Amino acid sequence: MDSDNQPQLIDTDVHISMKELSDLIPFLPKVWHEQWLAKGIAFSGYYSSVGVTRKDADPPNGGGPGSDPQYLLEHHIEKNHIDYAILTGSANILGVSLHPDLDYGNALATAYNDWMVETWLKHSPKYKGSMVINPSDPEAAVKEIERMANHPEIVQVIMSSASRTLYGQRFYHPIYEAAEHYGLPIAIHPGAEGRSVSGPPTPSGYPSRYFEYHNIIPATYMAHVNSLVTEGVFEKYPNFNFVALEGGVSWLPHLMWRMDKNYKGLRDSVPWLKKLPSEYIKKNIRFSTQPIEEPENPQHLKQIFEMVGAGDMTMYSSDYPHWDYDNPSMVLAPLPRYMREKIKAKNAIELYQLNEKVRKADQLPLSMGEMNND
Amino acid sequence: MDSDNQPQLIDTDVHISMKELSDLIPFLPKVWHEQWLAKGIAFSGYYSSVGVTRKDADPPNGGGPGSDPQYLLEHHIEKNHIDYAILTGSANILGVSLHPDLDYGNALATAYNDWMVETWLKHSPKYKGSMVINPSDPEAAVKEIERMANHPEIVQVIMSSASRTLYGQRFYHPIYEAAEHYGLPIAIHPGAEGRSVSGPPTPSGYPSRYFEYHNIIPATYMAHVNSLVTEGVFEKYPNFNFVALEGGVSWLPHLMWRMDKNYKGLRDSVPWLKKLPSEYIKKNIRFSTQPIEEPENPQHLKQIFEMVGAGDMTMYSSDYPHWDYDNPSMVLAPLPRYMREKIKAKNAIELYQLNEKVRKADQLPLSMGEMNND
Repeated sequence: MDSDNQPQLIDTDVHISMKELSDLIPFLPKVWHEQWLAKGIAFSGYYSSVGVTRKDADPPNGGGPGSDPQYLLEHHIEKNHIDYAILTGSANILGVSLHPDLDYGNALATAYNDWMVETWLKHSPKYKGSMVINPSDPEAAVKEIERMANHPEIVQVIMSSASRTLYGQRFYHPIYEAAEHYGLPIAIHPGAEGRSVSGPPTPSGYPSRYFEYHNIIPATYMAHVNSLVTEGVFEKYPNFNFVALEGGVSWLPHLMWRMDKNYKGLRDSVPWLKKLPSEYIKKNIRFSTQPIEEPENPQHLKQIFEMVGAGDMTMYSSDYPHWDYDNPSMVLAPLPRYMREKIKAKNAIELYQLNEKVRKADQLPLSMGEMNND
Repeated sequence: MDSDNQPQLIDTDVHISMKELSDLIPFLPKVWHEQWLAKGIAFSGYYSSVGVTRKDADPPNGGGPGSDPQYLLEHHIEKNHIDYAILTGSANILGVSLHPDLDYGNALATAYNDWMVETWLKHSPKYKGSMVINPSDPEAAVKEIERMANHPEIVQVIMSSASRTLYGQRFYHPIYEAAEHYGLPIAIHPGAEGRSVSGPPTPSGYPSRYFEYHNIIPATYMAHVNSLVTEGVFEKYPNFNFVALEGGVSWLPHLMWRMDKNYKGLRDSVPWLKKLPSEYIKKNIRFSTQPIEEPENPQHLKQIFEMVGAGDMTMYSSDYPHWDYDNPSMVLAPLPRYMREKIKAKNAIELYQLNEKVRKADQLPLSMGEMNND
């Protein structure tokens, strides 16, 4: 914080995990205990030759990287002068939407959210929570949003970027209606691409190994951004914000230009759109910086950011404790100062309403709110 | 041509079609006649609200756009002072690799190539042919390359960008070995994404309509480029060229930077790579310009091209007679002169050896060549 108590640095992607699978047991209905302890979410998944976590992030008192609230504070948050950390779970728990059994996925999402509140959000006011939902069961996802939305330390809904169908499709719209109602953005996060009942990570099937898989994750992000805009989600829910975490930024010029060019020729097939596709992206979608692109000539990154106004759309993220962590004092250096300030804190403060004591939350449940309007 | 008889403008993506399905009958074994006439390649496919061809491209003597060799010469080639047109078939015939019956696909590829030679390559020396192969049956594809490679007017092999698996995988390597042997580049072309036995057009399933589908075609291209480089195709076949037709260009900075950054962290999982991934792309892969991105500020396109040296990697293409045709006198205007000259002709001359009377073709079949080396 500065002298006016304004946050100066917010990390929008900090991962947490359980020390052991059994940590979730107190929060999970008994019927699921045996399956959870035996199989977890039973991902297959690619193998990273350098591991997926930093070698220096093991807490001294045991448990894996990101599993100790006090050590994470000391090792990352305080050391880097981070005012708030938006907790984003892990690719493992986000996979609840990719398990074939919707009930199992719903139960795990609920249990995770309760565990996160107890273990993390009560530990430090610097931690802000993302509630996990199972978007493959929209009715259950809406109920979970209604259950958790008014928790004052929960600032976001999160789900896996890997999905059974594109996130712009009508199937998911009740979820966006609920998120807009409660003033909560919905983030996606990668890591489950190609696993469980998700489709393959590319339109032509499975990359052979982690390096190739990791290179192409943005294809999923481009597809979702394209779908959300094209299906008219942001005309239907104009105050709804979608957050593309850890999916890259520098593909935005290409996608925006291609969408805008095609819109000029084919707009009669999407008559619900009232402006250029790129304008919806700029207004309603936010992006996190990590893993920031690192061209040989740093000016090229600045050029890309300037082309699309990315200084207003992106938010700093570290991806702590993962292997490709971005240090806040280094990664934004190629960008001009006016962008850095927004990216480090201002854009996140605005999106997550971090300066307002009471969010416009404390909303009635969606159904009751509607009844009151009648 | 200029005064030195040097080509000044080459169009690397001109589509041709049959007037009627029955045009192929003289070239197709009798066993397939009934299926071809009844079903064609039985695509489903997205519906373009503006159609897929220009409204003004119907030949006066009947047949659809791109089906009359003489009218195409007059309407497009001569009118635009194009020296050579690289014929690229159509998405329909390229779908031979996506029909479940490999024998049917192989027969159609062979019949199409014979029809193209008779109907088009004999009509004008301005027409240069791309032979269609069925990469889903590599042994048959190699035989087809051996059968057609020494035809002096055939300058390229072509296949669908939509595929069952990623094109870098070992399954396809015999095809690349043959192409390198005969000095023929292999091009991919979009249009069959999501059809027949191809996977869905995105990692999260099917876009809802043509506009959305067309916006996201580059995801397939990014995945193939990533796969070809990562699997070491260009270390194994260093003189092999891959051509990404009609898949966009402006995503190259993002993909190159992401691949290079990940390579620095994960190169021990791809020990066969000897240099940065972006260097293979620059040396071995070529791109066509259409549909060229059209940012509001044309300088942004120039910046993108300069970032990655796209002036050396791209070739002009019109996509005649399709709806999103790019006129050669307009689309390259935002680029500096030194790039325009390369993009209009020089890069294609070099790739397709259009200045050499005798290509390094007239090669012995692959198997015999190998025997002679023993």
